[in-house]
Amino acid sequence: MFNTIHVFRVKPGQELLDSITSYCAESGITSGVIIGIIGSLETAKLSFLKALPGKYQSVDYSGPLEIVCAQGSVALKDNAPIIHIHIQLSTPEISCGGHLARATVFSTAEVTIGELDHQLMRQSDDYTGLNELVD
Amino acid sequence: MFNTIHVFRVKPGQELLDSITSYCAESGITSGVIIGIIGSLETAKLSFLKALPGKYQSVDYSGPLEIVCAQGSVALKDNAPIIHIHIQLSTPEISCGGHLARATVFSTAEVTIGELDHQLMRQSDDYTGLNELVD
Amino acid sequence: MFNTIHVFRVKPGQELLDSITSYCAESGITSGVIIGIIGSLETAKLSFLKALPGKYQSVDYSGPLEIVCAQGSVALKDNAPIIHIHIQLSTPEISCGGHLARATVFSTAEVTIGELDHQLMRQSDDYTGLNELVD
Repeated sequence: MFNTIHVFRVKPGQELLDSITSYCAESGITSGVIIGIIGSLETAKLSFLKALPGKYQSVDYSGPLEIVCAQGSVALKDNAPIIHIHIQLSTPEISCGGHLARATVFSTAEVTIGELDHQLMRQSDDYTGLNELVD
Repeated sequence: MFNTIHVFRVKPGQELLDSITSYCAESGITSGVIIGIIGSLETAKLSFLKALPGKYQSVDYSGPLEIVCAQGSVALKDNAPIIHIHIQLSTPEISCGGHLARATVFSTAEVTIGELDHQLMRQSDDYTGLNELVD
Repeated sequence: MFNTIHVFRVKPGQELLDSITSYCAESGITSGVIIGIIGSLETAKLSFLKALPGKYQSVDYSGPLEIVCAQGSVALKDNAPIIHIHIQLSTPEISCGGHLARATVFSTAEVTIGELDHQLMRQSDDYTGLNELVD
């Protein structure tokens, strides 16, 4: 189950992934589900997996961009937290989404994290070249 | 934690945001997370933040449109509930998403709300010109 | 509430919907919320509701495609489980989403399911021609 549901705001000008990482560190969250993020961004860098093992292409977007939604997790690999988030963005003209590499908040980012009662773990995977969830 | 998970259907022809607002009023939900919505819409009006403070542009879409996903929250501002939802829609040709302003259900909308064990609050923010989550 | 939160990985080459169906069968999940899915796909078939009752159009996509997000539910109809998922996909050039008909995993699919403390039920609906959630 979710022991605790954390709902918090990331403020204008802050880097989204760094802010979530800091929040998790301060709150002692090492295992959780990113249930959702909505808000808006000034800029974003998304990554797209193109080939295995682990070949990514990155694309930069500049806003204002709506954060339509986001999902992901907080897990440990060798005792270090890995926060993995995919995010969907939009303008009236553009719809785009992918792996969240970097993003600067425009008006707000409203983040919901469900803290788990069991530990999620990642380990490196030779086939994908990525840190994959362990069963 | 989530005290209660509400999963309910909004029926054809109903206005989505009004229906969720009514459901929350009838069920006494004043603090919660919109975990998800899927289904389809006849029409939708989405808003996009263009500039601060609080300048939005709205766009109308007509369907049938799939509701791919949605996220958001139920919070109180001055004792009145504010339901804030971002939603992603699609047709075979179009992908669009943004702040949900209005929408009429086509076949169904399957809504999941997690009711929180603590009260989410909003207050007006001079910088963004919007009602922002309070820490 | 959510009795249990299941977070698990679907591996490369596996069919996503079949894998989730198998996981639910093995874990005895008959009522739940698909809280999220992220990862990447090799191929996907999405469906779009075009007219009522129940007229769908299907579109095939080939990847690699990011799984940006997904939402849905596990419910029973006549004692048989129905898993209903909508999913958002992307490449640097394409953003698409709809009803998940079929998909083959590329690198991984990280699935989060919240098992419910009450039974979700579906029944066929003459107006929509689909299996709709029962109140």
